[in-house]
Amino acid sequence: MPNQSHFPTIGIVGGGQLARMMIEAASRLNLKTKVLCESASDSAALIASYFEVGDYKNLNDLEKFSSNVDVLTFDHEHVPLEILKKLEKSGIKIRPGLKALSCVQDKSVMREVLGKENLAIPKWKIIKEISEIETFASENSWPLVIKTTKGGYDGKGVWVVENLEDAKEILKNPLTNDAQWMVEEFVKFKRELAVHVARSPHGQSVVYPVVQSTQKNGVCDEVIAPAPGLSEENASKIQALALNIAQTLEVTGVFSVELFELENGEVLINELAMRPHNSGHWSIDGAVTSQFENHLRAILDLPLGSPKLNAHTTVMVNILGGKFEDMYKPFMHCMARDPELRIHLYGKQVKPGRKVGHVNISGKNVEDLLSRAHHAADYLTGTITE
Amino acid sequence: MPNQSHFPTIGIVGGGQLARMMIEAASRLNLKTKVLCESASDSAALIASYFEVGDYKNLNDLEKFSSNVDVLTFDHEHVPLEILKKLEKSGIKIRPGLKALSCVQDKSVMREVLGKENLAIPKWKIIKEISEIETFASENSWPLVIKTTKGGYDGKGVWVVENLEDAKEILKNPLTNDAQWMVEEFVKFKRELAVHVARSPHGQSVVYPVVQSTQKNGVCDEVIAPAPGLSEENASKIQALALNIAQTLEVTGVFSVELFELENGEVLINELAMRPHNSGHWSIDGAVTSQFENHLRAILDLPLGSPKLNAHTTVMVNILGGKFEDMYKPFMHCMARDPELRIHLYGKQVKPGRKVGHVNISGKNVEDLLSRAHHAADYLTGTITE
Repeated sequence: MPNQSHFPTIGIVGGGQLARMMIEAASRLNLKTKVLCESASDSAALIASYFEVGDYKNLNDLEKFSSNVDVLTFDHEHVPLEILKKLEKSGIKIRPGLKALSCVQDKSVMREVLGKENLAIPKWKIIKEISEIETFASENSWPLVIKTTKGGYDGKGVWVVENLEDAKEILKNPLTNDAQWMVEEFVKFKRELAVHVARSPHGQSVVYPVVQSTQKNGVCDEVIAPAPGLSEENASKIQALALNIAQTLEVTGVFSVELFELENGEVLINELAMRPHNSGHWSIDGAVTSQFENHLRAILDLPLGSPKLNAHTTVMVNILGGKFEDMYKPFMHCMARDPELRIHLYGKQVKPGRKVGHVNISGKNVEDLLSRAHHAADYLTGTITE
Repeated sequence: MPNQSHFPTIGIVGGGQLARMMIEAASRLNLKTKVLCESASDSAALIASYFEVGDYKNLNDLEKFSSNVDVLTFDHEHVPLEILKKLEKSGIKIRPGLKALSCVQDKSVMREVLGKENLAIPKWKIIKEISEIETFASENSWPLVIKTTKGGYDGKGVWVVENLEDAKEILKNPLTNDAQWMVEEFVKFKRELAVHVARSPHGQSVVYPVVQSTQKNGVCDEVIAPAPGLSEENASKIQALALNIAQTLEVTGVFSVELFELENGEVLINELAMRPHNSGHWSIDGAVTSQFENHLRAILDLPLGSPKLNAHTTVMVNILGGKFEDMYKPFMHCMARDPELRIHLYGKQVKPGRKVGHVNISGKNVEDLLSRAHHAADYLTGTITE
């Protein structure tokens, strides 16, 4: 296509649903994509016009994959840093950059960076032996949270422990790679909030409205955009905080901050993600520009799109794998029951508890939207039959 | 993918932008698509996970292509009816069906069907020789419209003639295939309107709001959804008319009616299209369910999505090929100038006057939206430089 030689190609490492939704966003803008997948049946591979099967931990596979892309981005945060450093040295544009990625690959690095900036985070400590937990408990109080510094996601690698005996049991688990154990105070939060920023290499940033997110068994369950009852003042503070972190870490692309809101209205930073995040899927239907489109625009240093709400409220509820191996029948039922549902399915093989899609719905009455979105998600999972 | 065996595969004949936007809509619903293209550089082929290159006028190519699809649909209306009849006989589901397709492949058939239903259409007549135009002119008045009954689109195959001499010149053009000449009264309309219906084989229909559409040189230029200043009563009448035609012609899929609104508020039917139409592209960003998604839902006999507006007003302006062979720089400029623009590019080779994309923008102030959308389209075409 010599006529459109300047329309760039984005290489996406990882073939999950985030890659899939990036491809969907790329198509309407005529941005080209290619995906490095683990298998041809990966969610993104199923809709990709071009993909390669390869190992994201293998330098050769990544070098081959990156040879003809204008920029490299990620569906997940698991590509080893040493490999990314080598790719960067060979001239490949990696976005988000290494500074940002190193911070999310290791929770202790993240905590250290945020601590240095005097940002509010839960109390934490790296632990080598059980006695250190005892000391930490004496300075704080039970329960405590034990985490591995690397490799955790969706509730994996995180345990809430009530006492020293339980903690001992957890520490018997093997640590993968060069992960360490860390302990954190258990934050008695009122609710969880999340906010998403898109930032481009030349420093343009846009920030989405602050949303309320609810986890279930450590997995994102529902999101309400914007967060109900959050004062404009607090929302602005949280947005400023997120913009500040994005700048400090020199983030490029979409960046998510998950926070705990305390009873007194203060917030603590819980986690960061250097990519579009489940808590931002509402934006596909609820914002002028989705987090996926803005991620692509940001990593390509294109001007960013408006993050404004395009509805009073948009609710997102995750669809988890459950009873149905083939979801087509419940899918039809949900469409028939509620013509305003925006159902997104990722084409993934259904396994119990696996994220296989999400439902968005926009309107004014939060309770009504929540009940309709949860009904659809529960029906698709199979936990309800009417 | 044995786990999702009931998610159907849609075969799309033709690789233009309508096919491309169908694929985009299919992806989020996990509906599979394959495309029969003329070339691997066709708009839809560029983003398709699967396509075949073949000739839509060749029965063998179509049989091979259709062998493993659940339903066959179309990017254009040019597949010969005899071929479709043979495919249907061999058990392939063709949607829209033959009755509807025969009506849009031949403008005289369309006029006859609408006339039989006593629907308001411009006065018309098939003509074999120039004397018949003279007679028609004496019963009506100059100017008149001369059309070929088959093969016209985007202003091609349509001429406005001021006098008999001009008409004679037009009739010197060769007629393709089994097309005939027809003459029509020149309607002095106030404006053009369009309305879109999705109808499924089991008879569920939804109708979109009536929009105002403006042509330039016979090509759709801008669309305003909903049509400004149209009374609720007239809008309902037009919607009922479209639903009625859809039922009469047993349409399946999205169906478009283009109308002339006269000074006295009455409407005449101008054209029908048995597929998503340029005048419905606003729905991608301006309706709860886009015309492309509802087309897919309709041809698969899935429950239809809500056609409701999701913004006060959405404006669509076409981007035509112009000065820039490579549109990336003006594309960046437009993004920077207006972060609320929804730019859609089709990946087509840029040729002067060719439809290469469209811009949508939603808001409240129609004049403001029109000026912003036209600015972007003009800038991308290259007719303005600021």
